[in-house]
Amino acid sequence: MAEMQAACLYDFEGDEHNGELSFSAGEILQIINQDVGEGWWEARNKAGKHGLIPETYVEIVQAPEPAFPPPPPPMVGTVPSAPPMFSNNGYASSPPDNVPSSFNHQQSADDWEDDWDDDDGDSSTSTGHSQEFTGTASTAPGPSKREAKQISPGSELSKYGTVKSSFNRFSQFAKSGGEAFLMGQTNDKVPECEKIKIIDSVDGPMWLKQDSAYTCIVADPKKDSKMKGLKSFVTYQLTPSFSNIKVSRRYKHFDWLHGRLEYKFACIPIPPLPDKAVTGRYEEEFIQERMRQLQGWINRMVQHPVISRSDVFQHFLTCTDDKKWKVGKRRAEKDEFQGGKFFQLLQTPNQALARKEVEAKMEVFGRFVGCMTDNMKTLLTVNQEYAKKQLGPFKREYAKIGTSYKQLAQTFNLDKSAYSLALTAAIDYTGDAYIEIGEMFARQPVLDAYPLIEFIHEYKGVLQTYPDVLKVHEGAVGKAKECQKLQEEGKMTEQQVKNVVAKADVISYGTLAEMNHFQHERVRDFKYMMQRYLQEQITFYKRLTGKLEEALQHYSQA
Amino acid sequence: MAEMQAACLYDFEGDEHNGELSFSAGEILQIINQDVGEGWWEARNKAGKHGLIPETYVEIVQAPEPAFPPPPPPMVGTVPSAPPMFSNNGYASSPPDNVPSSFNHQQSADDWEDDWDDDDGDSSTSTGHSQEFTGTASTAPGPSKREAKQISPGSELSKYGTVKSSFNRFSQFAKSGGEAFLMGQTNDKVPECEKIKIIDSVDGPMWLKQDSAYTCIVADPKKDSKMKGLKSFVTYQLTPSFSNIKVSRRYKHFDWLHGRLEYKFACIPIPPLPDKAVTGRYEEEFIQERMRQLQGWINRMVQHPVISRSDVFQHFLTCTDDKKWKVGKRRAEKDEFQGGKFFQLLQTPNQALARKEVEAKMEVFGRFVGCMTDNMKTLLTVNQEYAKKQLGPFKREYAKIGTSYKQLAQTFNLDKSAYSLALTAAIDYTGDAYIEIGEMFARQPVLDAYPLIEFIHEYKGVLQTYPDVLKVHEGAVGKAKECQKLQEEGKMTEQQVKNVVAKADVISYGTLAEMNHFQHERVRDFKYMMQRYLQEQITFYKRLTGKLEEALQHYSQA
Repeated sequence: MAEMQAACLYDFEGDEHNGELSFSAGEILQIINQDVGEGWWEARNKAGKHGLIPETYVEIVQAPEPAFPPPPPPMVGTVPSAPPMFSNNGYASSPPDNVPSSFNHQQSADDWEDDWDDDDGDSSTSTGHSQEFTGTASTAPGPSKREAKQISPGSELSKYGTVKSSFNRFSQFAKSGGEAFLMGQTNDKVPECEKIKIIDSVDGPMWLKQDSAYTCIVADPKKDSKMKGLKSFVTYQLTPSFSNIKVSRRYKHFDWLHGRLEYKFACIPIPPLPDKAVTGRYEEEFIQERMRQLQGWINRMVQHPVISRSDVFQHFLTCTDDKKWKVGKRRAEKDEFQGGKFFQLLQTPNQALARKEVEAKMEVFGRFVGCMTDNMKTLLTVNQEYAKKQLGPFKREYAKIGTSYKQLAQTFNLDKSAYSLALTAAIDYTGDAYIEIGEMFARQPVLDAYPLIEFIHEYKGVLQTYPDVLKVHEGAVGKAKECQKLQEEGKMTEQQVKNVVAKADVISYGTLAEMNHFQHERVRDFKYMMQRYLQEQITFYKRLTGKLEEALQHYSQA
Repeated sequence: MAEMQAACLYDFEGDEHNGELSFSAGEILQIINQDVGEGWWEARNKAGKHGLIPETYVEIVQAPEPAFPPPPPPMVGTVPSAPPMFSNNGYASSPPDNVPSSFNHQQSADDWEDDWDDDDGDSSTSTGHSQEFTGTASTAPGPSKREAKQISPGSELSKYGTVKSSFNRFSQFAKSGGEAFLMGQTNDKVPECEKIKIIDSVDGPMWLKQDSAYTCIVADPKKDSKMKGLKSFVTYQLTPSFSNIKVSRRYKHFDWLHGRLEYKFACIPIPPLPDKAVTGRYEEEFIQERMRQLQGWINRMVQHPVISRSDVFQHFLTCTDDKKWKVGKRRAEKDEFQGGKFFQLLQTPNQALARKEVEAKMEVFGRFVGCMTDNMKTLLTVNQEYAKKQLGPFKREYAKIGTSYKQLAQTFNLDKSAYSLALTAAIDYTGDAYIEIGEMFARQPVLDAYPLIEFIHEYKGVLQTYPDVLKVHEGAVGKAKECQKLQEEGKMTEQQVKNVVAKADVISYGTLAEMNHFQHERVRDFKYMMQRYLQEQITFYKRLTGKLEEALQHYSQA
């Protein structure tokens, strides 16, 4: 590849002893080698000094210069301060959300080999492969730590990973060949089997659905340990319906898969995995809960027409052999059609899109995502508060009512007259009934509010990943517009611009298809969830009514 | 009547200008005239000074000296500080609970005649006839004021009169011939028609029930006024089932009746009337509420086998003529068999009572009343709090839930796809359903908690009057024991003591019969109330469930 220029977006104070090159925002560097790996490039500044630079700190500059909005500054944990090197500390497993996964997985397979058996991150060191970058992290903020959360029933139940809103999907897209794709600078041949079809429907562009839908069960969590019990971990058994063969996966494998999917499918938001919890990580309750959440995540992936048939996902669901796993893993990491290049796979309808219409749709959808995010927050708060009230005040309230009847029965019991006994017993029973109703209220959230809360949490996660997906699209559209301006100025030919617009259309098609998929999923999911919730509420109030009816019956003998 | 000696129980600083005689506790006075009326007697002290003394401040001393425990000190409002005189201030109507009614109703009929038409007490001056005693109330505490209560829906709902626990039924009993009855010093002839039969039953002594049970409806409250609208009052129309003739009664008539009943039936606790409320006295809601409470009070009286057939009660229920009313009123006030003399009317089984057994029963019943009083207080608090929560927090809680769904529906409405609309509508409906459920919670207390609270209040009132009734009995039994001691000392003959014990048995029979009546009533009332309450709760939760089911149905089209 010819030498390229890159504009520095931020100041970077490199560690010269580790071969790093310092630079200031606005400086232009010559990129000598983009193949260093681990998120580093080799570059040369105007003074002729060589060194390693963090890929995310710069932007390739070419004619026409990209008009993309600059990517947001890198987050905690992405700031490299040590030179890339192979680390094998045994803790590295899950990349933090904001570290492009590609940084992390182009290390040698040996590395992973060990990881495969390792504990999936111990408490505070579970920052994944970003660990590999630490070292002399004097100038950079400390490594990001996933928040440790104590999981207990009735507590906040925040278990799905929080996605930092600055997840750098856009810059990733640009750097992973998105721009090249847009500008028609790619000529990679797409194998037929990899092509992803988008069709037109009454509801707009849609992913073509294959007939062979399948499911996958996540079950049988098993505690396992190595190093004579010093390190313990949990495996979950996954059984896809198409093979009916169990595969054993640990959280870190899910985490690796998540990273790959996120990196590959530039226009598909990948919901975050459940958070890692440190305290009580191996407690039965926590394991069961995580299993349920992983099941939810897997369900969403399995139901996605594109993801469910991708090689990387299939590999994850089917590979039972260590050696083959490594091969598949490496293949996935070296996938040609990831990020920006993913769009090369799309086969869209030939019809050009009406730009205004697409923009209007995007605007509405952006609002939709924003409002729905707010809705999820409100629903979360309201339902958490309601569940808390059921556990505490409601239970106490009905216990108080029940106790007051039981005390009355105790007094009435001082009167041993025959005509009085049945009433006394009935009132005592009424007391028990109200106390039991209080207990029922306290047991209820597990049946309705908690599943609803978990569901809302899941959707909150899905929604959080959307703005970045939309930004990719926005960037592409902006680029196309830029080109149209350049054409007006005579700096680009009509055909060139036409090509760019056609490529932008492909990105629009992909984004619209995904939006459409999201909306269909949303309707299905909320219908299911609301039905389930209401059904549980109905069952609850019927049982409550039944309790009262039983109490009432006792008075007929009084 | 021969001159009697009276022992002074308390200090009294009389107003000499008004002809009052001062005295100190322990002083012995000669009683010259007990016929002064209005609670005053004429007396002479050792120094030979004449003057008026308040009847309740002294105790007649005779051989054997009464061993009754001294009556509790008079309460606020009973302390005379002006000489008895006929007052006609237009406000006098209802004696406070602690003023023996006999004091107040032996005034001339002219007085009442005016009262008959008068406003039933204006605001803070509604202390009834005790008003007549005020004047130069320098040394005595001010006139008692019934607490003015603002009645509003959902508020405390405390509407039944509070009975001061020191209501002086016992001293009344002693002074109204109870002691004479016990000592066999009465030979009044009891007309056959006035006799009240007590029979034995498996549950112990019982009032003989007549067949001719009847009911009485309190309805049609009418606002009326006199003095060109300056004074307004409310009349309630009472229709007893045996006559089906309406009579019009004002609160002050109820109050008069209450006083008479309380005075006459020494062993029957008369539940207090609903409190007077000053603010909003003529507001529709208040009038309806008072009507309901008066109906409750009348029900209790009508269902009492002794009260329901007493002359005074019959007079109250049937008299439609002003002149006849006055005659009946005077007759009731001059009733020979009131208070202590009431026991002369009782026809009990011949069998002597086992003293130990009676005492054990009394002890248990005393505890019963005490515990049940506590229970009523707890139930009151618990239900008031619960009702308050339904009105406020519950309503808000469900409104919040409902609103969060409606907001979600608003967001979902941004997606106009055909497949989305039914879900959006269903979620919107669910929001409405939860908001409505909140409203239902707020409307519910009127249907279940308030009637229950009113009922508990009523019983609290009934219970509060009991300790005094029990004290009358206790005093009589104590007296009998005293006589037995005197017999041992040779100061009384066996026959004399036998007679006293037989008379004490009559009082025990009457008290036991009333206790029995109370327990039967209690079982019936609580059965009815609990059934009604639970039925309302069941209906409520069924309607709530129905609302949720409706909401659920909307999803079948989604």
